[in-house]
Amino acid sequence: MNTRRTFLKNTTASVAGATLLGTGAFSTWANPTPVQGDLTIQQVIDQIIATIPGGKLDQTVDTIKQGDGSQKCTGVVTTFMDNAEVIKKAASLGANFIISHEPTFYNHLDNTDWLENDPVYQYKKKLIADNGIVVWRFHDYWHRHRPDGITEGFLEETDWKKYQSKDSEKPNLLTLPSASVKEVALELKGKLDLKRPFIVGDASMKVTKVGLRLGASGGTSQINMLSKEDIELLVVGEINEWETAEYVRDAQTAGVRKALIILGHQRSEEPGMKYLVGWMNKKFPGLKTTHVVAGDSFQAV
Amino acid sequence: MNTRRTFLKNTTASVAGATLLGTGAFSTWANPTPVQGDLTIQQVIDQIIATIPGGKLDQTVDTIKQGDGSQKCTGVVTTFMDNAEVIKKAASLGANFIISHEPTFYNHLDNTDWLENDPVYQYKKKLIADNGIVVWRFHDYWHRHRPDGITEGFLEETDWKKYQSKDSEKPNLLTLPSASVKEVALELKGKLDLKRPFIVGDASMKVTKVGLRLGASGGTSQINMLSKEDIELLVVGEINEWETAEYVRDAQTAGVRKALIILGHQRSEEPGMKYLVGWMNKKFPGLKTTHVVAGDSFQAV
Repeated sequence: MNTRRTFLKNTTASVAGATLLGTGAFSTWANPTPVQGDLTIQQVIDQIIATIPGGKLDQTVDTIKQGDGSQKCTGVVTTFMDNAEVIKKAASLGANFIISHEPTFYNHLDNTDWLENDPVYQYKKKLIADNGIVVWRFHDYWHRHRPDGITEGFLEETDWKKYQSKDSEKPNLLTLPSASVKEVALELKGKLDLKRPFIVGDASMKVTKVGLRLGASGGTSQINMLSKEDIELLVVGEINEWETAEYVRDAQTAGVRKALIILGHQRSEEPGMKYLVGWMNKKFPGLKTTHVVAGDSFQAV
Repeated sequence: MNTRRTFLKNTTASVAGATLLGTGAFSTWANPTPVQGDLTIQQVIDQIIATIPGGKLDQTVDTIKQGDGSQKCTGVVTTFMDNAEVIKKAASLGANFIISHEPTFYNHLDNTDWLENDPVYQYKKKLIADNGIVVWRFHDYWHRHRPDGITEGFLEETDWKKYQSKDSEKPNLLTLPSASVKEVALELKGKLDLKRPFIVGDASMKVTKVGLRLGASGGTSQINMLSKEDIELLVVGEINEWETAEYVRDAQTAGVRKALIILGHQRSEEPGMKYLVGWMNKKFPGLKTTHVVAGDSFQAV
């Protein structure tokens, strides 16, 4: 998880420049946009990366996980996670390019050596190959986009954009109308259709200062934000249970006003991949781009 | 998490020897047991470690996290996690030695440099110091104990010992009477008083072959067990949501019979720290040892 944490630190530092340039998510693009069928998948990828501040990264998990990028792009599917059902859906839509925020093969670096003889891995690999699909991960770059595409999608889905800090270096800080942690959690449950939100800390505590750490940025990143920023409530996708939750539990005993809402990883970042559709439609109006929801695999008992 | 994973691999390999020696959890001890007040905390620790196959480890997270081990032991508290409420309870019991399975300071290695100016950290550090308490982590050694103390406590609490594999190298494999994944989850929910069990995969699938990965052993360890062992259902404490859950979701699409039950980290390992009380009472009958439940900090919304 170090990769993610380091990355998150870097992005916070680079927000200011982008904002000074006045770039909105849907600002006009310098290049004309070719129609569908004219671009190879690799060209689409290259044109996406060209819009990211800092450009191409030497080290990134945002690589083609499988498939031949030199083929013409017949359509795009965006998703939080390219599970086998999403791949089938893309094939049925006639799309040969899946843009997935999270890994394809069950680990952050998509190492597959350890899976070579595994029937689930073999099935998925064949499913992708048989349908002539290219899977590309869009994680680091989408977070580095200004504004961060994942945060932007979340703020759109929750209608919380209006609460975002005016400090361009702190896009993950929000000032909400005063409400209890439980009321905030219920609002998010409704707006994001959460199956399993959890609170840690005092659910009745009134809060206005809220921090966002969508996804799973790790305990150090999450606790540092809670500790060092002037916030009362941190909203995250996923935690390690022995880290952030325990810090918040001890904060409550210590009388330090800190609480936590855990959304679930998929629901915290899926809106950012839905938001990508509008972005792609502006950038590549000739390409058909569809969002396919990966869904939350957890079933309550 | 690499430390944990490597460790888990090693323990599986070393089970056979212990079983051949015929050591039960409560076998008689070679040394006479001094009465309470005669032993320093460090001596208690040393005598515990002397019972572990392989003895003292060069690299382990099982260190004193805070406090002076040279003081006489006035009483012992065992817990899954020494949160501030547990520390207060230990003080009220007159116990100056807390044995905690998980970290004190919100990260696996208990690094505290990054927390020096944090008010929650400062509060906890002062709480431990003011009460003259010594906190020792008992994670790696307790898992290396034969039988694994955490597994043994879980099997006792669930009354599943009778289902454990007779293959001494595979203590984490169980053969249950045929039941659906949902029925197994409901049984565990009742027996372990689970607040938030989740299923991934086909809840109606009938299973008999069950694997245990209590705690949070990481995606590679969990997926390897599901993939390489002849099991249908894996029962775990905690996962990374983009790893094991996604493997199981794809397995369902692929028609590979694999399902997952997620217990929550605390409830999966707390029974093993409760079980430690009986073990301590046999080894140190002169010492008063009490189990204090850390509790699950997650509140449903």
